[in-house]
Amino acid sequence: MGIYNSAVVPYGDGFAGVFRVELGNRFPHLHAGWSEDGLDWQIEPQPVVFTNQPPEIGPGDYAYDPRVVKIEDWYYVTWCGGFNGPTISVARTKNFREFERLDNAFLPFNRNGVLFPRRIGGMYYMLSRPSDNGHTPFGDIYISQSPDMIHWGRHRLVMRKGGDETGQWWQRTKIGAGPIPIEVEDGWLMIYHGVIDTCNGFVYSMGAAILDRDEPWRTLYRVNQHMLTPDMPYEVSGHVPNVVFPCAALHDTAANRLAIYYGAADTSCCVAYAHLDEFVEFVKSNSCVF
Amino acid sequence: MGIYNSAVVPYGDGFAGVFRVELGNRFPHLHAGWSEDGLDWQIEPQPVVFTNQPPEIGPGDYAYDPRVVKIEDWYYVTWCGGFNGPTISVARTKNFREFERLDNAFLPFNRNGVLFPRRIGGMYYMLSRPSDNGHTPFGDIYISQSPDMIHWGRHRLVMRKGGDETGQWWQRTKIGAGPIPIEVEDGWLMIYHGVIDTCNGFVYSMGAAILDRDEPWRTLYRVNQHMLTPDMPYEVSGHVPNVVFPCAALHDTAANRLAIYYGAADTSCCVAYAHLDEFVEFVKSNSCVF
Amino acid sequence: MGIYNSAVVPYGDGFAGVFRVELGNRFPHLHAGWSEDGLDWQIEPQPVVFTNQPPEIGPGDYAYDPRVVKIEDWYYVTWCGGFNGPTISVARTKNFREFERLDNAFLPFNRNGVLFPRRIGGMYYMLSRPSDNGHTPFGDIYISQSPDMIHWGRHRLVMRKGGDETGQWWQRTKIGAGPIPIEVEDGWLMIYHGVIDTCNGFVYSMGAAILDRDEPWRTLYRVNQHMLTPDMPYEVSGHVPNVVFPCAALHDTAANRLAIYYGAADTSCCVAYAHLDEFVEFVKSNSCVF
Amino acid sequence: MGIYNSAVVPYGDGFAGVFRVELGNRFPHLHAGWSEDGLDWQIEPQPVVFTNQPPEIGPGDYAYDPRVVKIEDWYYVTWCGGFNGPTISVARTKNFREFERLDNAFLPFNRNGVLFPRRIGGMYYMLSRPSDNGHTPFGDIYISQSPDMIHWGRHRLVMRKGGDETGQWWQRTKIGAGPIPIEVEDGWLMIYHGVIDTCNGFVYSMGAAILDRDEPWRTLYRVNQHMLTPDMPYEVSGHVPNVVFPCAALHDTAANRLAIYYGAADTSCCVAYAHLDEFVEFVKSNSCVF
Amino acid sequence: MGIYNSAVVPYGDGFAGVFRVELGNRFPHLHAGWSEDGLDWQIEPQPVVFTNQPPEIGPGDYAYDPRVVKIEDWYYVTWCGGFNGPTISVARTKNFREFERLDNAFLPFNRNGVLFPRRIGGMYYMLSRPSDNGHTPFGDIYISQSPDMIHWGRHRLVMRKGGDETGQWWQRTKIGAGPIPIEVEDGWLMIYHGVIDTCNGFVYSMGAAILDRDEPWRTLYRVNQHMLTPDMPYEVSGHVPNVVFPCAALHDTAANRLAIYYGAADTSCCVAYAHLDEFVEFVKSNSCVF
Amino acid sequence: MGIYNSAVVPYGDGFAGVFRVELGNRFPHLHAGWSEDGLDWQIEPQPVVFTNQPPEIGPGDYAYDPRVVKIEDWYYVTWCGGFNGPTISVARTKNFREFERLDNAFLPFNRNGVLFPRRIGGMYYMLSRPSDNGHTPFGDIYISQSPDMIHWGRHRLVMRKGGDETGQWWQRTKIGAGPIPIEVEDGWLMIYHGVIDTCNGFVYSMGAAILDRDEPWRTLYRVNQHMLTPDMPYEVSGHVPNVVFPCAALHDTAANRLAIYYGAADTSCCVAYAHLDEFVEFVKSNSCVF
Repeated sequence: MGIYNSAVVPYGDGFAGVFRVELGNRFPHLHAGWSEDGLDWQIEPQPVVFTNQPPEIGPGDYAYDPRVVKIEDWYYVTWCGGFNGPTISVARTKNFREFERLDNAFLPFNRNGVLFPRRIGGMYYMLSRPSDNGHTPFGDIYISQSPDMIHWGRHRLVMRKGGDETGQWWQRTKIGAGPIPIEVEDGWLMIYHGVIDTCNGFVYSMGAAILDRDEPWRTLYRVNQHMLTPDMPYEVSGHVPNVVFPCAALHDTAANRLAIYYGAADTSCCVAYAHLDEFVEFVKSNSCVF
Repeated sequence: MGIYNSAVVPYGDGFAGVFRVELGNRFPHLHAGWSEDGLDWQIEPQPVVFTNQPPEIGPGDYAYDPRVVKIEDWYYVTWCGGFNGPTISVARTKNFREFERLDNAFLPFNRNGVLFPRRIGGMYYMLSRPSDNGHTPFGDIYISQSPDMIHWGRHRLVMRKGGDETGQWWQRTKIGAGPIPIEVEDGWLMIYHGVIDTCNGFVYSMGAAILDRDEPWRTLYRVNQHMLTPDMPYEVSGHVPNVVFPCAALHDTAANRLAIYYGAADTSCCVAYAHLDEFVEFVKSNSCVF
Repeated sequence: MGIYNSAVVPYGDGFAGVFRVELGNRFPHLHAGWSEDGLDWQIEPQPVVFTNQPPEIGPGDYAYDPRVVKIEDWYYVTWCGGFNGPTISVARTKNFREFERLDNAFLPFNRNGVLFPRRIGGMYYMLSRPSDNGHTPFGDIYISQSPDMIHWGRHRLVMRKGGDETGQWWQRTKIGAGPIPIEVEDGWLMIYHGVIDTCNGFVYSMGAAILDRDEPWRTLYRVNQHMLTPDMPYEVSGHVPNVVFPCAALHDTAANRLAIYYGAADTSCCVAYAHLDEFVEFVKSNSCVF
Repeated sequence: MGIYNSAVVPYGDGFAGVFRVELGNRFPHLHAGWSEDGLDWQIEPQPVVFTNQPPEIGPGDYAYDPRVVKIEDWYYVTWCGGFNGPTISVARTKNFREFERLDNAFLPFNRNGVLFPRRIGGMYYMLSRPSDNGHTPFGDIYISQSPDMIHWGRHRLVMRKGGDETGQWWQRTKIGAGPIPIEVEDGWLMIYHGVIDTCNGFVYSMGAAILDRDEPWRTLYRVNQHMLTPDMPYEVSGHVPNVVFPCAALHDTAANRLAIYYGAADTSCCVAYAHLDEFVEFVKSNSCVF
Repeated sequence: MGIYNSAVVPYGDGFAGVFRVELGNRFPHLHAGWSEDGLDWQIEPQPVVFTNQPPEIGPGDYAYDPRVVKIEDWYYVTWCGGFNGPTISVARTKNFREFERLDNAFLPFNRNGVLFPRRIGGMYYMLSRPSDNGHTPFGDIYISQSPDMIHWGRHRLVMRKGGDETGQWWQRTKIGAGPIPIEVEDGWLMIYHGVIDTCNGFVYSMGAAILDRDEPWRTLYRVNQHMLTPDMPYEVSGHVPNVVFPCAALHDTAANRLAIYYGAADTSCCVAYAHLDEFVEFVKSNSCVF
Repeated sequence: MGIYNSAVVPYGDGFAGVFRVELGNRFPHLHAGWSEDGLDWQIEPQPVVFTNQPPEIGPGDYAYDPRVVKIEDWYYVTWCGGFNGPTISVARTKNFREFERLDNAFLPFNRNGVLFPRRIGGMYYMLSRPSDNGHTPFGDIYISQSPDMIHWGRHRLVMRKGGDETGQWWQRTKIGAGPIPIEVEDGWLMIYHGVIDTCNGFVYSMGAAILDRDEPWRTLYRVNQHMLTPDMPYEVSGHVPNVVFPCAALHDTAANRLAIYYGAADTSCCVAYAHLDEFVEFVKSNSCVF
């Protein structure tokens, strides 16, 4: 059994999460889990079962790369689900035991759907990365809004991948949002992954940007270099070599702490720590918006 | 100047339409046009100009393969527009002179967006064909609904392309909706194109299906053979050889008439005539739903 | 209904044949047919039904590009059949009404299987063109032998496609055997197709070679130029443009006549005539074996 | 000098084998070798030389991924050999010093040819995996039979790769037989490799199935998960990263022992041990035939 | 025998030229020819033979798409020749009977090499279109200079293909220079081809630009639309459908005449006429430099 | 900050060099550096700035894989630079502080440009490897000459990659020159890289050849096996796994020493040592010219 890119949130006195788990058939499912300290986890042996799973929104077959966020009374889970091709699936729970499936947010083909942690101007907001039905050698980050978590519209382009003219080679192939955006003084801190293609495959690194608080399709700052790139053996080697893939973050603004959960080489789950203010300052001081 | 796949509707005492026009740069724009008899057309020399064209929904650059439909008081135009990749753009007009741009219905990458001519259960419905950012060697027909023509959700798969197991080779590569669906006794008559790939390129043919009146994501009948396939010289040869691409239809139920406008070889505009009842009967009598 | 690349033989006082027929679903089936003069044909409306069609050798789904040959008491039919991918299927008949299916001759992926009209040294011989499961941008002609028309072995390479160093651009992409080889004074006259890839697709032309009578994997003569290439409108335009595809031949050595049946643009069936001795002489006088 | 995927059998008081050896030019040849304990090997410095190597069956150029099996009086070697493209080559020996080349079993393009260790119903049987002439992004396992080890026929599909609908992602890209099948109580134990494509390359894992004793094209059990997948550094990293490739097995039914020889990352040779009854039981208890 | 894209110049009282001729093997060679009126041509039955053809500059294998220009005392021929891949070959003649081969101008991979008709600032100038070794789905026009017609340097980019942002879809895939540039009042009139890729292949059209007289890497005017695009049956259909490929031009400034020789569908040779002043004025009045 | 494939030369009492440096944006620039012992380096924090950088020869954007050579009074630097695609850029310096940009040597698309350390017959000579604008799955080594380091001509093919018929699989995909050729008794020692494609990516190894002293397009000896191939963890794993890429060499003929600088996995810089005479002797004794 392997546990890969995963999503965690504070819950009760400890933490809860939704995990991409692959048993021996390598078919990815979502499993819930609990932890007291955010590092030592008890993963449910059975996959999440959804209520309200009409066949029209897909057989609920594969499910990977989840994100979790609390908005008002619900914990919402988004993930890359199967709907005659990958798209962004959505469910919600109050207790991480009963999950209610909502409609898929978009048509295929889409990945890396990430909700904002509160409504903005009364609307829900979601980042996503439309692309194709394969291993996606291209892709930019868009944002969409919804009055009801069902119907999505007013799609806006947030950020393009970097081209030669920008010098941003570490993110020249595709980009995708990672953890739930964090509200900071300057707006929304969006941690994301950027990808470069080499002659022997992709290299996934981590970067960050700050989006406007009220019009989050506007990028105020965007880091001009990767902030974490495969270097340790467990990041460089594995079933998908050279991958650092951030997908969740815990932060404590008062304590100025930031813990970023990321998958490494599609084989290990890792946590990277930072001081939140230094992290934000780095993005602002090394910014290159394009 | 070339005029290609085009969309026409009854208007006043005659007809109006929106046309894909390519001047010498081959860059496609939409132009309005008028006709007394539906065959002889006056095309506006200047492209349609949209009010309410915010930059966030794309520079309005290319625009092709329009469809037009009257819903309540407005004529809605959908087309394949540029939004950092092709997607379904939407506008509305009352007089074919002033067009108001609405938000793009979907994220990229999408083509062949076709609205239904009335609300169903209070909701607008649109067919579309999500695919990739190239010449799309795959694609199925989906349906989405919206309460406000802005936010779209409850996405459902309507029809897949035919695979080997179905014997439907004429539509084995991709399919896409054509004219505005026509309400007939059995439900919605949806005329569409199906594509086969040969070793020397694609062949586009015309087929049809009947969708459930109230739950239009359900296919009641689907023709088990093409109803029109490239045969005449102007269908077999041209800038995109071997293309029959239906994109509009005029019908008169009382008179039992059906006129299907289709593009031929991306070079000519053609009209095919049928008796509406015979056309529907053919679909029902030669049906193969999968 | 379309009738494409087809195979004919003398039968009784006239001719019989097996035809690739595609109804409106464009799914190819085999149909039998009869003719008094070899030009005017009565095609059976129903596809050939095979006895002895065990599921293990494929559901008998698609079937195209047949060849027919009489060996001893039986008429054998070979065609490109579906066996989890294309391969060479085999059947036999005595009356073109009852067809007995034999085992597929080869594993996938193979096309253009052509039997010799008699045993050589007690063995059956078959030409074929192994390649891949798509539109086959490469392929050479091989020969295999069998003691029982079931088990095949002693595979030999007969002819490669032409490379730059040969100057044979008309056959530089792939080659495949056409009609049943004709026994002539010098050996076996093998008419075949050669293909060049242009920047707008493949061009299929006709050539010929003479193989050794007793060791037919040896090429004695091979024409250094195409003998027929798309030129007439019905050869240049059609659903698969620029195709001349020979698949059967009638000959009368005494009368020195040769009639070559070929498909044109995968849309028309054509016949080309020649004097047999002149045809052979042309191959010998313009030979380039490589 | 590198020694890669290799094939071993009991021989005399110890073991003999045929090995894929690549010298500094990385061109693969077969070398014989001897061992007393099956772990410490003396490899012949010169490649195997074949008697009866007619030019028609290929110049005997490259040769890799051999398998060895004793049938009646002979040790038969099959490997992926060059015949104007890869196919299954065959030779036999009695002493691992003199090898007699037989005809290639199949036309190109084929890999992973694996003989059964005895005749079944009087016929020899061979598994193989037809595919294309490149790095083969697809492929299923077939079986063929022969009365004489020369002519092969009655081809049957044994197992397909796993699709989305099966959940078998670890084997969704291609599969290929590994060691010589082992006769167990339930039939034939076939160990094989399954491959998944990730966005950074293929991952090769090991699985197993049990085929019917008398009709070995029937799959009775097929494991629903990989039984070994790259995990150790020498499996994850190397010239072909993330490869576990089983190609031989020694078993002792009485002692209930099973030793599986596998190549790791195309760089190391490894052995994995199991209790034979537990191994079989695992396959039966975790079976998913499709 | 086919005669395709060809190059003609005034010579003596009439005209001479170099022609791409393909005999039945479809292998392209250069043949000389003469004409009194520029329309009725006598083509030499044998290919051009070059003196000074050292093996190091290629075996002189294939040769296609020639251009001819008179500079001072010599007629120079450039063409796409084989040098372990396509590049620009060069030869010169004084009488179209004896041709002296010079060194290839560039390394592979290059096509459409076009010389200027006089030195500029003492240097020879050549346009070319570097790309890859296949059917070149991309390519821009560069210019290089040489003091001696042997060593080339000071490479400059002249014009890029049109991107979405330019609206120039007719030339969005690749561009390549055509006839020898014509010195006009504003500078150098460069007629070129532009290509758009459709879902059924490329469409080649004709455009033109005016380059600076002294610094010809500067584009002063560039037509914002195609000036000729496949429309006639012999342009739309043929072995390479939808091709208009200009490769030579005769002009008479005093008489204000311009005759453009172009290949159609790689099957026919055509001539288009214009008034030179109107042609230039059209380029200037419809210019879009990017 | 990463320092990759780099070029070093003796300078003053120690060594100087030009390095490919990538900061956090992974965009490659050239930086100068100094060292006393050739192993411990001080790298300039700022990229090299060029005088005489006209916009026509490219914005000087990316720059990687440099080589450095002293010819007469100047140190010349060549690298893979951006000129609307990769090509060979050239600069010169006397002190590694002020660099004067010269014209690009060739049109795109080219990589691995390596100058000879002295004129031969009065001409400068440069090796290069023309290919395409992507990750170059093919490529051979050419040589060109120049009277002035600006205009290049008399292009000759030096060495092709190895094909199946040569048995040279380690160099079957592409080859490219590495360090500056070293003049030895037999001619020019050229160290180069050869590449094999596996089903999980490329493997780059090191080989060598000896070119004729006066006609360096003639290969006298060429090693028939790789001399260094990825084996150590830092060669096998990294951002571009399995890469050994030689790009500079220091030699001392009197002391019989050779130090080869090579990049490993595009992540580390390494040095390999040899006795020069043994190195040369190995090439001569294991030679296979093709």
